Amino acid sequence: MSRQSTDKRVAVFAANGLEEIEGLTVVDLLFRAGIPVDTVSITPERTVTSSHQVTITCDRSIEDEGFSFDEYDMLVLPGGIPGAPNLKACKPLTAAVKAFDQAGKGVAAICAAPSILAELGVLTNRPATANPGFQHVLVENGAILSQVPVVVDGNVITSKGMATAIPFALEIVRHFLGDAAVEDLKPGIVLEG
Amino acid sequence: MSRQSTDKRVAVFAANGLEEIEGLTVVDLLFRAGIPVDTVSITPERTVTSSHQVTITCDRSIEDEGFSFDEYDMLVLPGGIPGAPNLKACKPLTAAVKAFDQAGKGVAAICAAPSILAELGVLTNRPATANPGFQHVLVENGAILSQVPVVVDGNVITSKGMATAIPFALEIVRHFLGDAAVEDLKPGIVLEG
Repeated sequence: MSRQSTDKRVAVFAANGLEEIEGLTVVDLLFRAGIPVDTVSITPERTVTSSHQVTITCDRSIEDEGFSFDEYDMLVLPGGIPGAPNLKACKPLTAAVKAFDQAGKGVAAICAAPSILAELGVLTNRPATANPGFQHVLVENGAILSQVPVVVDGNVITSKGMATAIPFALEIVRHFLGDAAVEDLKPGIVLEG
Repeated sequence: MSRQSTDKRVAVFAANGLEEIEGLTVVDLLFRAGIPVDTVSITPERTVTSSHQVTITCDRSIEDEGFSFDEYDMLVLPGGIPGAPNLKACKPLTAAVKAFDQAGKGVAAICAAPSILAELGVLTNRPATANPGFQHVLVENGAILSQVPVVVDGNVITSKGMATAIPFALEIVRHFLGDAAVEDLKPGIVLEG
């Protein structure tokens, strides 16, 4: 990180089978924006393998001595199969997601992962989106389904998939730093139009 | 890879300081398309750290016993600082890039990395693009500078930066498998419009 722009901190959770671009695009753009971000493995091992056989070593594991969700201001859940089902099966993570939402703290999910939020009751009566293959789970759990690439509803950000990872990550930047910080990022990544 | 769709093989080179999204978007989309792809470290260590402090363990190193560029049909150079300068300083890699181009085999580069091709003489009198901060190197070396997100000129594919990584990777898929394979990928990544 060239210069830190906030005292807020974001955790991107990584399970085996995560969609690596969905997770790492958030890391990339938050790093560029100066927002502290950690990759956090949900297994005791810090090294995870993505759904496309990419091996990534995370900054931390939720099973590390002294790890606490309370160190973070937003929890980010990438998709991927079986990455998203693995996140869903992680009880400490799903409990934290629910507690974060109840406290009005940030929760963001993309692709298959918004279905985890839906099943936790986080999206009930709220606008949200997900990968088309998982949108029925949102509807079944009372979400107001949207077809835009990214939906921001207060503390909750949801998005559709790998090809919407950049707009998803930019909304996370906007959440913490506002519009000007998002505009500042665009030339460096050559995001035009 | 769910099913292999070609006997061609692609190498994505990784140096310390690589732009991880530019490299891994190629891995992700080729994996989805069934095109065999290896991440290849240019250091003796297979583990590299990206320009945004993401730690990735590659499939191979160019210094591995028995490694040969001849196993590949396309060499892919991601950008990133100091990733791209590190690739440029790797003599076995730059010699292979030049030889590949002379043999009409595939070479692809994005962001800062097309400047490496330009300095090797690969882009002389050819249409190409790069990150705006590196386009002067293309012009100085006789390239025909284009401002579109991706330029395909026969065996050579060049692109602008992190936010053009998906169209860049899709042109690599098109190079090997044609238009239908590219269209087949779009729903899975939720690439609309």
